Amino acid sequence: MKITITGIYQTKFGELWDQSLEDLIRESALGALKDAHTSLKHIDAIYIANKLSGWVGGQNHLGSVVAEILGVNLPIISVEAACASGGVAIHQAALAIESGRYHQVLVIGAEKMTDIDNSFVAEALMGAASGPERETGITFPGLYGLMARAYMHQYGLTREDLALVPVKSHHHASLNPLAHFPFPVTKEQVLASSLVADPLRLLDCSGVSDGAAALVLSAKNPKSQVSLIGSGMATDTISLMGRSTLTSIPATKLASQLAYQEAGVKPSDVNLAEVHDCFSIAEVIAMEDLGFSPIGEGISLVKDGQTQLGGTCPINTSGGLKGCGHPVGATGIKQAVEIVKQLRGQATGRQVKRAHVGLTHNVGGSGGTAVVNIFTK
Amino acid sequence: MKITITGIYQTKFGELWDQSLEDLIRESALGALKDAHTSLKHIDAIYIANKLSGWVGGQNHLGSVVAEILGVNLPIISVEAACASGGVAIHQAALAIESGRYHQVLVIGAEKMTDIDNSFVAEALMGAASGPERETGITFPGLYGLMARAYMHQYGLTREDLALVPVKSHHHASLNPLAHFPFPVTKEQVLASSLVADPLRLLDCSGVSDGAAALVLSAKNPKSQVSLIGSGMATDTISLMGRSTLTSIPATKLASQLAYQEAGVKPSDVNLAEVHDCFSIAEVIAMEDLGFSPIGEGISLVKDGQTQLGGTCPINTSGGLKGCGHPVGATGIKQAVEIVKQLRGQATGRQVKRAHVGLTHNVGGSGGTAVVNIFTK
Repeated sequence: MKITITGIYQTKFGELWDQSLEDLIRESALGALKDAHTSLKHIDAIYIANKLSGWVGGQNHLGSVVAEILGVNLPIISVEAACASGGVAIHQAALAIESGRYHQVLVIGAEKMTDIDNSFVAEALMGAASGPERETGITFPGLYGLMARAYMHQYGLTREDLALVPVKSHHHASLNPLAHFPFPVTKEQVLASSLVADPLRLLDCSGVSDGAAALVLSAKNPKSQVSLIGSGMATDTISLMGRSTLTSIPATKLASQLAYQEAGVKPSDVNLAEVHDCFSIAEVIAMEDLGFSPIGEGISLVKDGQTQLGGTCPINTSGGLKGCGHPVGATGIKQAVEIVKQLRGQATGRQVKRAHVGLTHNVGGSGGTAVVNIFTK
Repeated sequence: MKITITGIYQTKFGELWDQSLEDLIRESALGALKDAHTSLKHIDAIYIANKLSGWVGGQNHLGSVVAEILGVNLPIISVEAACASGGVAIHQAALAIESGRYHQVLVIGAEKMTDIDNSFVAEALMGAASGPERETGITFPGLYGLMARAYMHQYGLTREDLALVPVKSHHHASLNPLAHFPFPVTKEQVLASSLVADPLRLLDCSGVSDGAAALVLSAKNPKSQVSLIGSGMATDTISLMGRSTLTSIPATKLASQLAYQEAGVKPSDVNLAEVHDCFSIAEVIAMEDLGFSPIGEGISLVKDGQTQLGGTCPINTSGGLKGCGHPVGATGIKQAVEIVKQLRGQATGRQVKRAHVGLTHNVGGSGGTAVVNIFTK
């Protein structure tokens, strides 16, 4: 597999009350096309990742909406896989190119979340969780809180050490002008922030954001340098109680094994990664499931500064879901945009040196879907 | 392109109050696997088409739900493209196989519509239409009513002749034990049924149904006889007012041109078709857009009995959306199941003689998405 990424674009993430979903789709699509030095005439198919437009926004025929916005009659496929929508869209776009049927594909991820009643958004987000579990009143912070408690019990992770993850993420976000929360936070601030779902506090949780990102994927383009060389996808039970473990996300392991095998790289070859840190504990578990750390020891990478800019494998240089923001459908695409920026040497102010292999890790729900994509230059 | 259809299954369509969405998914998936003489161990990826599970059913992470129901960790992709969800899922599954990455793919379409408050279902269905048009209070019967009025004005179609379409569909449905409405209706009954959106009456409109259907698609299987030989997809503006015509669905034309070209067949080679007759006028327009009839003359095929069983090109032998029922996500898959049954010679009681090439035509919204698939044995 060798699919070239010829164009990237990310809008500002934040509370974008003056931009509609349509505005964000248009801005990101045209931005990625411009970056790729191409036009819609040379696009064969489009994938659009979004989670809330139907339930919350009243519009669930987004393929046709994109056709109207961009003025095309192309095959346009809407992709929805909870918070993994963006990653799944990239995987689908890769299949489309590999099929030989579509040669250049535009992938858009976009979400509007902030100008809608919060409880309505929360209800729709919980649509990605198991029905019987929701009936207990549990929320995603609650589900990840259970995972955090189990992990802390099993491996001795302390609440104080867990706070180092968002400290690192916010440091990175403070260097990213497109981030929703571009300011540093201290360990003390994390520990003093409101309790959301024990042991997770407000500053352990990713925010609710508007935003969009887009990519142009091409069957070949020798002038461009960055390629997608491995893509793995896996699923698991929608219910957390259906799984054999609370301290690992098996779908991440499976997806990464597929991606590593295809890319012909091992975890130690990865120079930087954007991982799905919807909650701070998720980043610790991801580092282990992705093979960056032995099981139970993920936090030591954070304590040693290895996942910070300047470390051996910087993680979430964009700020991650925590610092950059988490406009659901855009997140998986934004992860890829950040990795491509870094591999191109365009991540001004937060550039990783000697970056050759980058990885994105995108999770839906509490681990019901996972996608791992590996890029190189 | 040559993708073999190795397994098919359709549940009963109807008001299935004793079966949940999960039950329907399980029944259709296992049914298609059994028909294919295979098992989940030999499936590489799954596509699930559904429209209402999120907005209406409170569950929008269906890939993970299917993983839990079937007990697998495969890549499972949820596909939503309004009423064209099933057709788009088949197109995506074809790409997956053509990519060389997945060799045998299960495609499921399932929908629960009848045990939910009707107005809530109607609201969610309207999510497939243009926002500004919905603000006028228009519904899908209204949009297709406008198309019917424009068509009748332009081509002199009479209200009486239009009634022949559902008469034909219900005749076919009366021969299909899986149909939701398996009874004949007369022209007089159509004309005397309640007015829904002038000139469309109750018996011009497809029903609200529960049901599921599934297919197994395989890269190769010399023992099986039916293959997918062409698949075309196109989109158009979500708003009807954005189009240049009310009497044609341009996305159908584009999708069918792509499918015919790929399959190497022309409209006159098609022996039978399942077309998207969400409203009686839609079937007339589809016959023209698909090239079965000159523009403006579609109804003459119906009047001559050519689209009835025994005619030159029977249309909607399943009963169509009108007679068989329209569980939205299942419809596009059910169309393919019916064509494969016919090409295999298994359509007991309604078998088309000398059937070699069959076509399915699936539309989303008022023509914002269209997919045409062509099968042969």
